[in-house]
Amino acid sequence: MNLNNLVKEIKRKKSFLCLGLDSDISKIPSFLLKDPDPIFSFNKHMLDSLNELITAVKINTAFYEENGSKGWITLEKTINYINLKYPELFTIADAKRGDIGNTSNKYAKAFFETLSFDSITVSPYMGSDSVEPFLKYKNKHTILLGLTSNNGSADFQLFSNNSSALYKEVIKRSKEWNGADNLMYVVGATKSDYINEIRAIVPNSFLLIPGIGFQGGNLRKTFENGANKKIGLLVNSSRSIIYAGKESDFLEKSYTVAKSYQTEMENLINNLND
Amino acid sequence: MNLNNLVKEIKRKKSFLCLGLDSDISKIPSFLLKDPDPIFSFNKHMLDSLNELITAVKINTAFYEENGSKGWITLEKTINYINLKYPELFTIADAKRGDIGNTSNKYAKAFFETLSFDSITVSPYMGSDSVEPFLKYKNKHTILLGLTSNNGSADFQLFSNNSSALYKEVIKRSKEWNGADNLMYVVGATKSDYINEIRAIVPNSFLLIPGIGFQGGNLRKTFENGANKKIGLLVNSSRSIIYAGKESDFLEKSYTVAKSYQTEMENLINNLND
Repeated sequence: MNLNNLVKEIKRKKSFLCLGLDSDISKIPSFLLKDPDPIFSFNKHMLDSLNELITAVKINTAFYEENGSKGWITLEKTINYINLKYPELFTIADAKRGDIGNTSNKYAKAFFETLSFDSITVSPYMGSDSVEPFLKYKNKHTILLGLTSNNGSADFQLFSNNSSALYKEVIKRSKEWNGADNLMYVVGATKSDYINEIRAIVPNSFLLIPGIGFQGGNLRKTFENGANKKIGLLVNSSRSIIYAGKESDFLEKSYTVAKSYQTEMENLINNLND
Repeated sequence: MNLNNLVKEIKRKKSFLCLGLDSDISKIPSFLLKDPDPIFSFNKHMLDSLNELITAVKINTAFYEENGSKGWITLEKTINYINLKYPELFTIADAKRGDIGNTSNKYAKAFFETLSFDSITVSPYMGSDSVEPFLKYKNKHTILLGLTSNNGSADFQLFSNNSSALYKEVIKRSKEWNGADNLMYVVGATKSDYINEIRAIVPNSFLLIPGIGFQGGNLRKTFENGANKKIGLLVNSSRSIIYAGKESDFLEKSYTVAKSYQTEMENLINNLND
């Protein structure tokens, strides 16, 4: 998907909400377990119910790999369903991949060609030649880990010398890489005080912000610090939406939570345009 | 596998060679393409031919994910075949995973339980709570990226303040994590000058050394700088062994290359014991 279309969709739906399908067999409603592929059923229900409230879907590969090749089949069915039925949704493989160039080429092929995702999350630890194989795909996007939402992010991402911290160094240097136009950045909502600084380094890039909901991030503060003229944000929520209910009314409950986020986003977007 | 068994096997076979199954459909002998699962056939041939020369097998997940769920089935068949037929081999999922704790739990389950690998490579970028879910498994091993073999490793792994470079900080800090006894470290053979320094920080840990062969690392220098009393090294070679030939004599050619590495290793081990 090209970014102009993503921005158009955000403005049309008044939403920069990303739905995280961290779908876990032990947490979905038990009456779905009789279906031949319960996780796929669950994902379809979520997508059919929530697609107008969201502009992006993030699929966390760990939750599928846990189930081995069966899980990988569920992953394939889910991305194919989205691409067929909701091609307007921006799709994210939350896979945190990254390896030497020869191997990153294969990961890029796996997620951009075989699975047809619009984007993938990538770890920067191995440097430029581990990321550039992803960047060469036109209209595909590589979401580099900048400053993540977990406590452990302080261990190395904040490792600093006199002039810079590692996460800033990552973001600064990545701007010089071949295909840097295709970069986005992961910035945890729990780090909203840092978003200002990151926005100053990459004023035009999209930021993927996880950590709203269960992880405790604040949506308004994130928006105030992180939005640019084209919004430039995708805010993800996974568990707080998809596990809002476990009974027969699980879709209504998920809808209510997603709608509350979308409404808050609509207000924020409207205020930005004033 | 517990480490004493790995050390015993290294001494019995006089080999610390790790076979990297970066098996690529476009590079294997063309007469295997008629088999129902050509990559699995290729892997079986390699394992059946080379198992007495090696003590470890590293499966690079990217080469399987490239083929979607079919590739993941090949991956499952390969690890199951090794665990059944060659349980004395130490198995490595070269997957470079790592995410927030809740997600790393799922990756640990995927690779240690669903697929029954002995170990997995993990990126340190997200810090302690992204790695500890892997470390809680007894007799399973987490191979943390320290200093990698690619050129891009200089971008961030060598990012330094007055007292330390990032890769050293990663290795030092990781020693304090819960379950640190289960840690090993990736150190590129192309960085053999650095191996001394890393060995000083982790005198007892196993180091996984990729980069011998196509990537240009030097085996003797690596051993002199990196071996400890229990050897403490696994040196990986992928492409230079598995693609040594493409014709009907491909197994002989692979054997010749692997045997030459093993012989060099035998000499190095014998000299160490003198």
